[in-house]
Amino acid sequence: MTPSPPTSSTGIRFGTAYYWEYQQSPDLERDLDLMARARIDTIRVGESVWSTWEPRDGEFDLGWLTPVLDGAHERGMKVLLGTPTYAVPPWLQRKHPELAVVRAGGHRIPWGARQEVDFTSPTFLQYAERVIRQVAGHHGGHPAVLGIQLDNEPGLHLIHNEPVFERFKSWLAERYGDVGRLNDEWGLAYWSHRLTCWDELWRPDGNTTPSYDLAWRRFQAELTTEFIAWQAALVRELVPEDRELTTCLAYQRPALHDAELSKHLTVTSGNAYYLPQDALARDSPVEITWFATDPAGLLQTADRMYASRRQRFWVTETNAGSIAGSQLNLPPYDGQLRQAAWALVARGAEMISYWHWHTLPYGAETYWGGILGHAMRPGRVYDEVAALGAELERAAGDVTGLTPDADAGFLYSHESKWALTFQPPLTLDGRNPDRDSYERVLATFYRGAVDAGLQVAFVSQVKRLPVLVAPALYCLADEPALELEDYVRGGGHLVMTFRTGYADEEARARAEVAPGPLRALAGVRYLEYSTLLEPVPLHGLGKRDVARHWADGLELEGAEPLARYDHHHFGRWPAITRHRVGAGTVTYVGTLPGRELTAELFRRQRPAGLVTAESPQVTLHSAVNARGERLWFAHNWSDRESTVTLTARATEVTGRRQPLPPGPLRLAPFDVRVVK
Amino acid sequence: MTPSPPTSSTGIRFGTAYYWEYQQSPDLERDLDLMARARIDTIRVGESVWSTWEPRDGEFDLGWLTPVLDGAHERGMKVLLGTPTYAVPPWLQRKHPELAVVRAGGHRIPWGARQEVDFTSPTFLQYAERVIRQVAGHHGGHPAVLGIQLDNEPGLHLIHNEPVFERFKSWLAERYGDVGRLNDEWGLAYWSHRLTCWDELWRPDGNTTPSYDLAWRRFQAELTTEFIAWQAALVRELVPEDRELTTCLAYQRPALHDAELSKHLTVTSGNAYYLPQDALARDSPVEITWFATDPAGLLQTADRMYASRRQRFWVTETNAGSIAGSQLNLPPYDGQLRQAAWALVARGAEMISYWHWHTLPYGAETYWGGILGHAMRPGRVYDEVAALGAELERAAGDVTGLTPDADAGFLYSHESKWALTFQPPLTLDGRNPDRDSYERVLATFYRGAVDAGLQVAFVSQVKRLPVLVAPALYCLADEPALELEDYVRGGGHLVMTFRTGYADEEARARAEVAPGPLRALAGVRYLEYSTLLEPVPLHGLGKRDVARHWADGLELEGAEPLARYDHHHFGRWPAITRHRVGAGTVTYVGTLPGRELTAELFRRQRPAGLVTAESPQVTLHSAVNARGERLWFAHNWSDRESTVTLTARATEVTGRRQPLPPGPLRLAPFDVRVVK
Amino acid sequence: MTPSPPTSSTGIRFGTAYYWEYQQSPDLERDLDLMARARIDTIRVGESVWSTWEPRDGEFDLGWLTPVLDGAHERGMKVLLGTPTYAVPPWLQRKHPELAVVRAGGHRIPWGARQEVDFTSPTFLQYAERVIRQVAGHHGGHPAVLGIQLDNEPGLHLIHNEPVFERFKSWLAERYGDVGRLNDEWGLAYWSHRLTCWDELWRPDGNTTPSYDLAWRRFQAELTTEFIAWQAALVRELVPEDRELTTCLAYQRPALHDAELSKHLTVTSGNAYYLPQDALARDSPVEITWFATDPAGLLQTADRMYASRRQRFWVTETNAGSIAGSQLNLPPYDGQLRQAAWALVARGAEMISYWHWHTLPYGAETYWGGILGHAMRPGRVYDEVAALGAELERAAGDVTGLTPDADAGFLYSHESKWALTFQPPLTLDGRNPDRDSYERVLATFYRGAVDAGLQVAFVSQVKRLPVLVAPALYCLADEPALELEDYVRGGGHLVMTFRTGYADEEARARAEVAPGPLRALAGVRYLEYSTLLEPVPLHGLGKRDVARHWADGLELEGAEPLARYDHHHFGRWPAITRHRVGAGTVTYVGTLPGRELTAELFRRQRPAGLVTAESPQVTLHSAVNARGERLWFAHNWSDRESTVTLTARATEVTGRRQPLPPGPLRLAPFDVRVVK
Repeated sequence: MTPSPPTSSTGIRFGTAYYWEYQQSPDLERDLDLMARARIDTIRVGESVWSTWEPRDGEFDLGWLTPVLDGAHERGMKVLLGTPTYAVPPWLQRKHPELAVVRAGGHRIPWGARQEVDFTSPTFLQYAERVIRQVAGHHGGHPAVLGIQLDNEPGLHLIHNEPVFERFKSWLAERYGDVGRLNDEWGLAYWSHRLTCWDELWRPDGNTTPSYDLAWRRFQAELTTEFIAWQAALVRELVPEDRELTTCLAYQRPALHDAELSKHLTVTSGNAYYLPQDALARDSPVEITWFATDPAGLLQTADRMYASRRQRFWVTETNAGSIAGSQLNLPPYDGQLRQAAWALVARGAEMISYWHWHTLPYGAETYWGGILGHAMRPGRVYDEVAALGAELERAAGDVTGLTPDADAGFLYSHESKWALTFQPPLTLDGRNPDRDSYERVLATFYRGAVDAGLQVAFVSQVKRLPVLVAPALYCLADEPALELEDYVRGGGHLVMTFRTGYADEEARARAEVAPGPLRALAGVRYLEYSTLLEPVPLHGLGKRDVARHWADGLELEGAEPLARYDHHHFGRWPAITRHRVGAGTVTYVGTLPGRELTAELFRRQRPAGLVTAESPQVTLHSAVNARGERLWFAHNWSDRESTVTLTARATEVTGRRQPLPPGPLRLAPFDVRVVK
Repeated sequence: MTPSPPTSSTGIRFGTAYYWEYQQSPDLERDLDLMARARIDTIRVGESVWSTWEPRDGEFDLGWLTPVLDGAHERGMKVLLGTPTYAVPPWLQRKHPELAVVRAGGHRIPWGARQEVDFTSPTFLQYAERVIRQVAGHHGGHPAVLGIQLDNEPGLHLIHNEPVFERFKSWLAERYGDVGRLNDEWGLAYWSHRLTCWDELWRPDGNTTPSYDLAWRRFQAELTTEFIAWQAALVRELVPEDRELTTCLAYQRPALHDAELSKHLTVTSGNAYYLPQDALARDSPVEITWFATDPAGLLQTADRMYASRRQRFWVTETNAGSIAGSQLNLPPYDGQLRQAAWALVARGAEMISYWHWHTLPYGAETYWGGILGHAMRPGRVYDEVAALGAELERAAGDVTGLTPDADAGFLYSHESKWALTFQPPLTLDGRNPDRDSYERVLATFYRGAVDAGLQVAFVSQVKRLPVLVAPALYCLADEPALELEDYVRGGGHLVMTFRTGYADEEARARAEVAPGPLRALAGVRYLEYSTLLEPVPLHGLGKRDVARHWADGLELEGAEPLARYDHHHFGRWPAITRHRVGAGTVTYVGTLPGRELTAELFRRQRPAGLVTAESPQVTLHSAVNARGERLWFAHNWSDRESTVTLTARATEVTGRRQPLPPGPLRLAPFDVRVVK
Repeated sequence: MTPSPPTSSTGIRFGTAYYWEYQQSPDLERDLDLMARARIDTIRVGESVWSTWEPRDGEFDLGWLTPVLDGAHERGMKVLLGTPTYAVPPWLQRKHPELAVVRAGGHRIPWGARQEVDFTSPTFLQYAERVIRQVAGHHGGHPAVLGIQLDNEPGLHLIHNEPVFERFKSWLAERYGDVGRLNDEWGLAYWSHRLTCWDELWRPDGNTTPSYDLAWRRFQAELTTEFIAWQAALVRELVPEDRELTTCLAYQRPALHDAELSKHLTVTSGNAYYLPQDALARDSPVEITWFATDPAGLLQTADRMYASRRQRFWVTETNAGSIAGSQLNLPPYDGQLRQAAWALVARGAEMISYWHWHTLPYGAETYWGGILGHAMRPGRVYDEVAALGAELERAAGDVTGLTPDADAGFLYSHESKWALTFQPPLTLDGRNPDRDSYERVLATFYRGAVDAGLQVAFVSQVKRLPVLVAPALYCLADEPALELEDYVRGGGHLVMTFRTGYADEEARARAEVAPGPLRALAGVRYLEYSTLLEPVPLHGLGKRDVARHWADGLELEGAEPLARYDHHHFGRWPAITRHRVGAGTVTYVGTLPGRELTAELFRRQRPAGLVTAESPQVTLHSAVNARGERLWFAHNWSDRESTVTLTARATEVTGRRQPLPPGPLRLAPFDVRVVK
């Protein structure tokens, strides 16, 4: 399916998930009125209650939603309606226990949460089609309906059910033709793994072969894409043409290739959860996989969403009250909800929708707090949401159709991520592998770019941006390596790190002098590399910093050294090099530098603009709206006052929307000001 | 069964578990003579050797115990005889492998230790009845027999066997009538969990619904109670009427409601294990679930036992040599055995029985040391035991029928504990849930009360005591909330903490302004709360301390603030408040304060008495004996000398039993002195 | 089989594992030429590729190796040929899924690595015999073949398959005669474990009985020995008489008794993996079970290998580039490969063979680096190897038939190790058991001996050496205790530690005053012992140090105290004692001392020699060659220069092989110099 153009709503959609059907004492009118007061114009409904839509096998109850749709329509609100396929009802699990997902190791996931079933099963798909036809068919044409959400947060499991494994063998047979080729490509002479027929393929449970693992993960991601594509095609027939098709993506899902999947949607939607309080204000005292921490983490979330379709996106879920389980309740400090929303808008969000309206008194997510707490009374969080809603409404004209600026492209590679999950280069503790190594390297450089004032765009292919970063781009085929060379010769600045180019598209280490296809471009080579068990002092670019985790044994082949280790052994090799090629430059970073030096690598690339800032607690972003005006977003993420400087006269888009003279512009603690 | 009055023995029973049948070279006469020399007057026998009682299916060997009973009787010693149902013989596991307990997740517990079987099975109960009839029938009438111990440490497992799950469905059907009500009460619209019939209920293995989990734990505790009640009724028929019926409770067992179970006993018995050495002398360098640490931990153990029947109790197991596995051998420092025994006596123990007489050369508990070590020779521990035995004998008249004093009642709630095990409010490490949150909050306030010199009684309902503490009383129905109000209006001082009253009896968060039914009484409300990722400075009541883990966003509705956070965000809310209501007071504690401030909350409630103490290393307790005399127990838990002050003339009950003038009374390191 | 005399090669065999069949673009001639240039004279081949030898059930492809054998032969190189039984092909696992090893708990090991099958199965042995007959029969007579490696690194799993468990019952029946004796010996009255027939024996999965566990481990080690013995007998028939029979031992394998197994070999081979860089230079910043760390760890590895047959040995695997997985890449510092090789030679290695020639681009061991890296180009590591090869070649005459000197014998006991794995005396963290306790105690004293300049020989029985150390010799029967007494009376110095002699050969604590059979010899007794939760200050022998983990409550019975605890409780007991008995001395160490004091225990035993050293970074070793000359090996393990002193004129064996005057001899960083 060809991506359609960006949706053309005016201003920013302001929304919330609304589960009327969950409530003990529902009061629809009161809820919708409170929402309207907060300028909420979009609600998201119905994606989790298959057992309410179809209480018994084949018996449907569809009317309960109509008052919600009507009530929304009366108030001019739009509705995003979900297909409920991610939460299967008890009667279906009881009738078809074989649908339960089998995990690696053979453990069947017990029913009791959601997403417990093998969605690839033809049996399951029959039931799914029936309920989708009913729900989308019945309600999809309602005038309040903005679009359909297909399933929810897909790709949670690597599905090890026997039929899926059988399909995997066929999938391999299609790709490799015969087992002889597989034996050669995957090196199966090793440890007596040579196959004589496809049925000899071992199950993934005991696999130790990197190329197998990569194939298994590619295949699993394709299954997820196939499932959403199937729903998209089905729903397309059932609803009017102008209805959007989307799903809420959780980008951490293991069986997800967001860009491939999003080709079947009309708009990208996703989660933008973050830890607020001090975790958003400075180096987080806690890190949890599901959540972004620190401003760079939040920005990265947005930039990943924009990248899925290179298009504005919807934030279908972001925290209102406090999201993270009973033991970790972190309602935002005053101002942080507003900060987060404006940061997402700056990076291309055209919908900010909170999860969720009211906090549940029961169920697994009792402590995943909504706009209203358990008391169902407007409180501080509601007030912050309502003030923000009003501010966004006032700024609607300015923020319509915003295209975020970008100075630095980051190459994102699912294959490299998957391969480095299986064979991680970093340790957690000086010993055990860090299966998030890929994301850790990427995040280090992303934060360096943010610290240097750059704006990032994630890209899957080479783009014409002043800087292009290839962090731990482990699986690199020959062709894209050539594109990188073209980019540099054309004047670009390519920053590549250790592990980039080390392996090929089968996750095989390249049997050539590293960094293989990038050797000439980088002007360095290495025949060895070392883990750094402890941080090693590092100096260069006028900074003293530390090198951590890794050191490539770089030998210069045309490049000049930029930074060196202070160490009796590693000191012989440069840590960072720079190579002029054609009109461009390549920076090769053979280690994981500290924050100071990482930022310094990007410092010279920072463009001038309407606003300038000096404090490390302040970020600046810019985007161009539908009228062609460039907006500047200045955030002060700290609890202390700060200032930025206007280099010319400007008009404020936030707050009182007043004209501003050149000169210092005050930012209160946890403040954000947008000017144009 | 109605609780019978407290047993009427004279003085304190001094005992040991004695497993003659385990020994390599048993020497009964020598053992009993050594015991008699140490003034041991009670032995506990036979509860672990079903395979000795019944070596083959239906073949019994009962006579081996007779010499033990006769030997005890000759020396005036009493015997507590156990039913051996917690340790099933190999022939039974081989004949009925289906009896093996199935754990959550489907794993069957392999045979090889004890307590591996589903004791609810009718098959098992047949075998159990047969062996009980033989053992108790044959020996229960022996004149040496003091009573029968029914099973041992019951409630180890949550039993997931299919027949138990089937019973659970019936149990739910009886309680809720129809699935529609269950759908409503548990909120099963959420995530498509709505049931149409009981057979659609999902197994507990994958459950994520808090109300389900609470029901499952209630049900499991009922199964344990039912089993002990069944044994009690059976044994009652078999033994003379004056024989006590008891079991040895391990209070940490997950499937145990001690008070409900104890209704079927004539006396409560239980474990009072603690870590000695520095762990008993000061803040423990190690914490292990099975063991009490620090003096407050030991006292809490005793107070829990007293509470089971609001009656004096037996300590059927406490450490002699060293209890904790091969890697953790901690024989007590000189004096600590005596300290522990007197502390237990002060809190209502009428039996102190060591586990066990001799240390086993083989078996799982090779390193759970007895009074005699592996050498089977009296050593330092025996000498300490013998000296204590003599001291207790001399004090017999004074310590008969002791009723411990209490200034502070602590409301203990199994339901709140279970609910907060499933949804813990605290973290272990700033991230992962602490499933012992309930006990941690409780222990913090218990220790505060001890630090302030108060004596505690655990209560399940409101009692007329000067102070009543409701720590993390999460599951609170409406009616008991009203009783709390009566208590306060009548002049009491109620101390309640964060999470108290937050949920209802189904572990649902209350859909009302918190703290719900206690809001008016507390004079505060809150619409939000926050985890504290790091300690926050706290000041109030003249102290500077820290707040940890939690902060309710308290708004005053009649209460006055007592303590505040020093923090840019949390500082807006009081941390601790006080509210005058009628003749009484309510203290609301919205956080987990440090040790200083917690003690300060209780400081003003400390009553005057015969003895006063200033050192934080000294505790004072009091109890009234059968003659109506009040005894005072002064412990110095440290390795440095200390003193207490007698406010009037007294007589010493310990040591030389001499008259003492008013004034300072010296306490040697690890000393205890009892006066009246 | 009677051990044959040491092999009679000249000089040190210098080798590498060479897997031609794994390579993407194999270039046999180039590889062999590069090897020859580096003076590599031995290659190890073929042990991992059953699926290459026998691609289909019963179809063999044997010719592929012939060019390798011929190529080696042409260059005068020898070949060690492996039987491929440790890596079974896919077709066999598919045909016989029942061969998969079942782990404790019932989990079947999924196929996908190697060593997944129950090698005791008659079914498996049929297939194994067939492939061995083909491979060894076809190639074993080739003139290049030096010997056959039987399987590889055997003993990885404790095999819990049902047929193995059935054999275990028979094994017990043979040993114990009837279950009554087992009941008595293992103390099975305890917890109702008494058996009435062998079929009632519980499976090891749930076992908690120490004697059972020890028997199970003995039995498992016997299975491994039996399997290798079976291969040895089979291969002996197939190859010429002068071919060596060996296997590559991984000494950490749980189901391995190296000395028993090695009786069936003609030479011991094994792994000598170590962590290089700082881990070899000083206290390692990381410890990983598979790897030796610090010089003492490397030396201990060699001494263990020598001990297997009390004979010179082959290092079939040692690190070249970097061995430890993708997250832990540690190529050696300059000089460290040379240091390690000379240290192994000094301790009796007559082959140094690197694992492996080239680094694999695919497979589980992609990051287990060879002499050549992924680039297949000679680099720094190749150069170091080649320089070492040349040096060893020059020194061939001097290093032929080296017998290492030894001053101190260390008693090694598999039984004590196994028993203390089940019931460890030490904790990891003050709480949880350290299942490596035995090795930790042993390594502490081994390092003490190295620090004091002693050379160690591991022994399984008492040997006439100046010092004999019995570290944690927990399982000690009566007879060997008598031998220890003879040793001391004859003038020896016996050092024994806590736990030595505490249990008997069934891992039962001895029911006598400890240390039981060694009490009179040690001149001390103890009735109690304690874990030390925290280090306790310790003074003695003129040193101030700390005691960790353990304190025996030693009472003197003839011995004199050498060191004491500074502690209010433990201070009453000596920590270390010395007892003169006959012409000898016994040192009893009741705790785990720090490094200072441990070394001091051995300091007076250090013999004079040709070379002396003072720096703690320098080690000295000596060995006598076939000509009767004593060689001295001086290592400087640090990155700073150091010196040793020649006490007489000498000739250098390393380097320029020059005559040297008495006086200081310079050692560069990471240097080693050998003189005679």
